[in-house]
Amino acid sequence: MKRVDARSGLEMLSEAECQEHLTSQAIGRLAVVAGHDPEIFPVNYVMDGPNVAFRTAAGTKFNASVRSTRVAFEIDGFDEETRSGWSVIVRGRADEVLSSAERLRLDGLGLRPWADGERDIWLVIRPEVVTGRRVGAAPDRFASG
Amino acid sequence: MKRVDARSGLEMLSEAECQEHLTSQAIGRLAVVAGHDPEIFPVNYVMDGPNVAFRTAAGTKFNASVRSTRVAFEIDGFDEETRSGWSVIVRGRADEVLSSAERLRLDGLGLRPWADGERDIWLVIRPEVVTGRRVGAAPDRFASG
Repeated sequence: MKRVDARSGLEMLSEAECQEHLTSQAIGRLAVVAGHDPEIFPVNYVMDGPNVAFRTAAGTKFNASVRSTRVAFEIDGFDEETRSGWSVIVRGRADEVLSSAERLRLDGLGLRPWADGERDIWLVIRPEVVTGRRVGAAPDRFASG
Repeated sequence: MKRVDARSGLEMLSEAECQEHLTSQAIGRLAVVAGHDPEIFPVNYVMDGPNVAFRTAAGTKFNASVRSTRVAFEIDGFDEETRSGWSVIVRGRADEVLSSAERLRLDGLGLRPWADGERDIWLVIRPEVVTGRRVGAAPDRFASG
């Protein structure tokens, strides 16, 4: 049965679909509030069970903006030809992983940052809310809900 | 000559490269501050000269969150195989276009929202700052946008 978001009219993805997308991607975007303004950062990430894990370097604007604050993390996939796509948004707090045993374990997850440079810090988002939406394609997408 | 961002170590795109990417894409992500929390929305958009224009519907969370506020708008392109990519971020205020002559003109720009439903409102971001970064190698890959 399809669930439709009343506000946007878009079909909502199931929890399982959201998790599938999250494990299939490597790049997402983090939105944070920095000062009073919105900031957005592309990041490469890896899933650690339900958590979104990524690396950063001490002393960077990214680290200062993202650490210990609420974030919205987004992934998506769109096909311009069929004008269809999906997006998944994870909301939660991004916190530094302090335990060295935990950091070692995360090092083993196979995340290789695409950018050069030291990135010693692991940040993890523990999701409070995960939502996904689909646009286009799927027939009888607005069938009722 | 290459400009490198001192903080991230990433190569910065020129203004011309940023504009090329902006005109070549159809989907971006808008980050806003809603209440005290960050929100992120994928949008399909069209460039109107230097401005980012997109449609929304009255009464939606999106419209309420984005209108008359500062936003960060992001586009990107990544290639997992070569572990390379680029991103462009536009910062500015998103405002509703109230002039009906102006709205008619925007209607002529060829933006077709991918989602169904009425979207009567035009919002426009007038960029204050546009920045772009490149990660990974791949010469020439970005030459044509």
